[in-house]
Amino acid sequence: MKMQSVQLSHGSGGVESQKLINDIFYKHLQDLVICGGEDAGVFESSSKLAVSTDGYTISPIFFEGGDIGKLSIYGSCNDVSMMGAKPQYITASFMIEEGFLFEELEKIVISFSAAIKECNVKLISGDTKVLPKGTIDKMFITTTAIGEIVYPNLSAFSLQSDCSIIVSGTIGDHGAVIFSKREEIEINSNLQSDCAFLYPMLESLFTENINIYALRDSTRGGIASVLNEWANSSNVGIEINEEKLPIKNEVRGICEMLGFEACNLANEGMCVLCVSKKDELKTLEILRNSKLGQNAQIIGQTTNENKKQVIFKTSYGAKRYLEYPSGELLPRIC
Amino acid sequence: MKMQSVQLSHGSGGVESQKLINDIFYKHLQDLVICGGEDAGVFESSSKLAVSTDGYTISPIFFEGGDIGKLSIYGSCNDVSMMGAKPQYITASFMIEEGFLFEELEKIVISFSAAIKECNVKLISGDTKVLPKGTIDKMFITTTAIGEIVYPNLSAFSLQSDCSIIVSGTIGDHGAVIFSKREEIEINSNLQSDCAFLYPMLESLFTENINIYALRDSTRGGIASVLNEWANSSNVGIEINEEKLPIKNEVRGICEMLGFEACNLANEGMCVLCVSKKDELKTLEILRNSKLGQNAQIIGQTTNENKKQVIFKTSYGAKRYLEYPSGELLPRIC
Repeated sequence: MKMQSVQLSHGSGGVESQKLINDIFYKHLQDLVICGGEDAGVFESSSKLAVSTDGYTISPIFFEGGDIGKLSIYGSCNDVSMMGAKPQYITASFMIEEGFLFEELEKIVISFSAAIKECNVKLISGDTKVLPKGTIDKMFITTTAIGEIVYPNLSAFSLQSDCSIIVSGTIGDHGAVIFSKREEIEINSNLQSDCAFLYPMLESLFTENINIYALRDSTRGGIASVLNEWANSSNVGIEINEEKLPIKNEVRGICEMLGFEACNLANEGMCVLCVSKKDELKTLEILRNSKLGQNAQIIGQTTNENKKQVIFKTSYGAKRYLEYPSGELLPRIC
Repeated sequence: MKMQSVQLSHGSGGVESQKLINDIFYKHLQDLVICGGEDAGVFESSSKLAVSTDGYTISPIFFEGGDIGKLSIYGSCNDVSMMGAKPQYITASFMIEEGFLFEELEKIVISFSAAIKECNVKLISGDTKVLPKGTIDKMFITTTAIGEIVYPNLSAFSLQSDCSIIVSGTIGDHGAVIFSKREEIEINSNLQSDCAFLYPMLESLFTENINIYALRDSTRGGIASVLNEWANSSNVGIEINEEKLPIKNEVRGICEMLGFEACNLANEGMCVLCVSKKDELKTLEILRNSKLGQNAQIIGQTTNENKKQVIFKTSYGAKRYLEYPSGELLPRIC
């Protein structure tokens, strides 16, 4: 009988390891790999590079709108995009539980491969480990993206006051999907994780020379985390018009049911932008011209007052602080 | 009461995550980090770079001669060194089990930090995830090293026949230590993992213009794996003089007790070299002048016969094939 799942021997660095790599990984990644069979991949560069690493441990590994394979590519490619870099290379380390079904592994490798193609990067180094049953829950992937900086000087430390704060899409979609899936809440809707590659949407902003101070994809900790980090790092205040926040009704519903703030929920295909006020409308227009940015919204501005604080305002004049998220929130969200 | 272990909230991307990073990671890594607080690290380069990623899942995480922190830095820095590159940057992604003791985490971060200093690299991007108890066994670390190539064209695909095969040190030390620790075999000796950074030992070979065809650190699968991969990739035969293999008595003892071949056991601070015959003695001399290379040995040669095969010979004329390792060997060795 043919084996149907990953065995410990597939991780021993011998015959079976080679077989796993050839039969499942190379099969779908062949044209996307450089320097296969060496200890390290090699590339030539004469520019400023951005590098970002992230470990993906999401549970469940398959979810509405994506899976761990796709997420692990988009996630790190998005992180270098946030530094104004065009992703070029990616490394990936797979950690797999003994007994993991080949069928599921192949599904993940196929979507991982499709994401690599979409991001137009090359897989420059890879690693596979197999762990005994019970020492890891199904599969973790760590990726590192390397990209060439095309729009320099973006930084969480360089926000100025009187700039506009914009979100490129609706808030909390990914977190709400994972939460409801994990809590087995039936969502009678098509709500999907927003899991997506952000660089193509941002490219026009870079080439149109929009004056951007900072970009940050809103993942773990949601926009509450991004805004508080920016306010702190750049010593500015941030004022958000609460009514402007684009939040899907399904996400609002899940938040009410579970007692969460949408602002603390993760996205995986949305970013927050800080741009100069004069460019805010042009930014909005460019974002909305892209498929991912159709729900983009100007949500607030940086201020000279209330330094290091994020303040939510309503049109009735109510004000409250948006705190840096704390407590457990949702483990294994990405 | 002060918390003594890692909690799920330390992985939520909020206040507690920041605290964990500041109190334990930054405390020991402050001077070694570039671009802290951004989504990606940035560096400038105008050369050929080598990149290598590896996931470290070793069990136990503390062992004679090292721990997972040190191993995760040396391991990936060694991998880029094998491509003739001087390591310059490293990224690290920590995955930690809920309940992991701060005391142990700090020990690991301290040795991780010392290894970064020793390798003279900068930490350019990092990530920390906390996983619910039972979904990961203690801690996994994935690192990616980036290095500048100083000795180009090393490749597993470029071995020629009539070259010398050299090992830089004794065989199987790391594997034997982990095995005996896991099987609770008392070794009445000082046997330690050989876990070490290899670049400094190799640097003189690069500057002295030794004619090297390939380098490979012998880790998972041992030298059996390296030699078989080389024979296959370069379509040459490899003949090894079995009596020349430097193997410590303790390692021989453990192998006999457990029925293993030392050639299948992992090292973490030893590499195999393929150099032109005319340079073999000079190579040996340079290696032996370095602390790590004192037990270096010429163990065999590449041949035009027996292509894709590795053959072990004794002085009595006995011959046998050294197979590519197969079966389970030892999971979680690195």
